[in-house]
Amino acid sequence: MELDHIGIAVRSIAEARGFYEHALQLPAEAEIEDVAGEKVRVLKLLVPPGTHIELIEPASPDSTIAKFIEKRGPGLHHLCYAVPDIVDATKHMLAKGYTPIWESAHEGAGGCLVNFFHPRETHGVLTELSQRPN
Amino acid sequence: MELDHIGIAVRSIAEARGFYEHALQLPAEAEIEDVAGEKVRVLKLLVPPGTHIELIEPASPDSTIAKFIEKRGPGLHHLCYAVPDIVDATKHMLAKGYTPIWESAHEGAGGCLVNFFHPRETHGVLTELSQRPN
Repeated sequence: MELDHIGIAVRSIAEARGFYEHALQLPAEAEIEDVAGEKVRVLKLLVPPGTHIELIEPASPDSTIAKFIEKRGPGLHHLCYAVPDIVDATKHMLAKGYTPIWESAHEGAGGCLVNFFHPRETHGVLTELSQRPN
Repeated sequence: MELDHIGIAVRSIAEARGFYEHALQLPAEAEIEDVAGEKVRVLKLLVPPGTHIELIEPASPDSTIAKFIEKRGPGLHHLCYAVPDIVDATKHMLAKGYTPIWESAHEGAGGCLVNFFHPRETHGVLTELSQRPN
């Protein structure tokens, strides 16, 4: 397992990115990406030594991220680990007693295959596993 | 700036560590450390590619972490970035408009010199800067 990214819920990428780009000096890896399926926009920043921060802003008031911010305020949202094979990784997690949110992985941003473990399952941390596209 | 660790508040390290050690297969870097000044116990795990997760459990009901868990439940608590020089890094952050919690750095776990930026200052993420001991 490798830490792929830390997801951070923000009200506005335009307002929050200065803290990461200019104060912490973490470079944006690409332009803001629309992830229509999740009704969010995402900005990915590189964080040495080789991981990323994803700033996630709601694109609609009925998105999961908008509801998270409404309930808890902006802040740390989830951790995502890259795995070589999402099917094998999900079987391994089930064998250890951790049940993912979906029966099988869904396609996420950038063509990754992803699944999630609810904070109830993981002592409080929404946890994503992601298989990068070949 | 380099991501030194992700701090995760847990009710019990003994109960939460299995998810990280056996399911996610992240190895503990050392034994559980008592950080008396913060009234917490900490378990540090290695996360490829070269960062760490710190599981933080309250050692007393009046610790900041106990209050955090009482209010929000266990979960993602803070991000810590390693800096070469905490005095220079603090000056840089002030020049960018971000004011730390303390006027000057305090000694933290493992002899690091640390300072924090309140979530109010940072769009929701408690942010620590840490200078490792020489």
